[in-house]
Amino acid sequence: MKLVRFSVGSAADGSAQWGVLNGTQVQVTRGMGGKVTGETLEAAQVTLLAPAEPSKIVCVGRNYLDHIRELGNDTGDLPAEPGIFLKGPNALAEPGGSVQKPDWTDNFHFEGELALVIGQRARNLTPQNALAAVAGYTCGLDLTARDRQKTDLQWFRAKAADRFCPLGPWLETEFDPRDVRVQTRVNGVVRQDGRTAQMIFPVVDILVYLTRFVTLEPGDVVLTGTPEGVGPVGPGDTVEVEVEGLGVLVTPIV
Amino acid sequence: MKLVRFSVGSAADGSAQWGVLNGTQVQVTRGMGGKVTGETLEAAQVTLLAPAEPSKIVCVGRNYLDHIRELGNDTGDLPAEPGIFLKGPNALAEPGGSVQKPDWTDNFHFEGELALVIGQRARNLTPQNALAAVAGYTCGLDLTARDRQKTDLQWFRAKAADRFCPLGPWLETEFDPRDVRVQTRVNGVVRQDGRTAQMIFPVVDILVYLTRFVTLEPGDVVLTGTPEGVGPVGPGDTVEVEVEGLGVLVTPIV
Repeated sequence: MKLVRFSVGSAADGSAQWGVLNGTQVQVTRGMGGKVTGETLEAAQVTLLAPAEPSKIVCVGRNYLDHIRELGNDTGDLPAEPGIFLKGPNALAEPGGSVQKPDWTDNFHFEGELALVIGQRARNLTPQNALAAVAGYTCGLDLTARDRQKTDLQWFRAKAADRFCPLGPWLETEFDPRDVRVQTRVNGVVRQDGRTAQMIFPVVDILVYLTRFVTLEPGDVVLTGTPEGVGPVGPGDTVEVEVEGLGVLVTPIV
Repeated sequence: MKLVRFSVGSAADGSAQWGVLNGTQVQVTRGMGGKVTGETLEAAQVTLLAPAEPSKIVCVGRNYLDHIRELGNDTGDLPAEPGIFLKGPNALAEPGGSVQKPDWTDNFHFEGELALVIGQRARNLTPQNALAAVAGYTCGLDLTARDRQKTDLQWFRAKAADRFCPLGPWLETEFDPRDVRVQTRVNGVVRQDGRTAQMIFPVVDILVYLTRFVTLEPGDVVLTGTPEGVGPVGPGDTVEVEVEGLGVLVTPIV
């Protein structure tokens, strides 16, 4: 089932609703994954929004070995634990929405990722119950000011600036995250082409680890790390993140 | 004016309300800083909660030179820009509420700080209008797993674990943050005793800097950094953060 968050008319008008996408129609629901209201809209008439209302966005860094190597961070040992960082809800951007390259970075990178959204409050998850806490899966773009990531004390503006986290186009509720293709294209050219089976810490491990330290709330977003192939983009480029089975997240850079 | 967030009865029941604290009475308001409803409660009958409902908690690291020196991070140059990191709303803890020392840190540190809460959406603030975006000021305790801060990729569990940000007891709306005492006591013994005038980046500079990168939303919390004197605490210790004019934030460690 494809859960969509949308507005009717302008994306900026604040009147976000949730629904189920069925072909060319959207059945309106009461909240994410809630009961249908009976109202049906034409998909062409709605503007999709980022399919999440998070209290936090939790991201995994360095979760694919080839990406660790391409950034020169390979120490010979795999990380013993996931490397985690945060973005705030201000970082979300809607599918298809453009993102402005900030003037304070000269090395603005794309990182295509599998993302998931939490469906129920979760603390101390186990390998057995971790995936049951997930409402659905989608595509995420972890935009990164690579130069600022290196110069700053922590990855704040490098990762968590406004609109540095395009997400969508929808949440897929029936999905097996263990071995799917994660591909990023820039202007139609394939730049990243990995599989989630290459993750050092798979989705279950990430959720078990995170919930030892933090409570995940319904709507929280988890980004699971990026494969090799990251690189700079600038005004005029279009980034497409496609996770197999989850559609394509399109982000024009302006 | 002292703005309080509270529940009647158990702090965990979710029915948070806002009010104005007047001596021994609380005048209930519609939201933070909103109009009075006419209902008045005895302060002794309410349980104070963290006085903020943030979408993000933005923190400044290394904002007092003597603290930079005590941690061995003095490079001879003052930081050119504030060092920023994030906590999520999961980190909040109510004034007087106890915090459990996690079993995954052997060096659990207190950091007493001046905190502020945003009152209106803010982006690209200027030195002239920055303070007008602040709803009020309070005391904050930036709990830190010092060992994990050093071993981990980013300061996630070291800073942003559940209840790692006690806040309160109230928001003071009439307050000049430029030169007030910030004192932290452990079991009644003074351990930190600085003044906000010692900040490398004063409150105005912090707000101008942050809003170049992120939109601050009403309810967002900003922690402004800690003076020298940080150190470990454990079960049985009681931490008191007192910012001059803002009351005392009491946090028992269990």
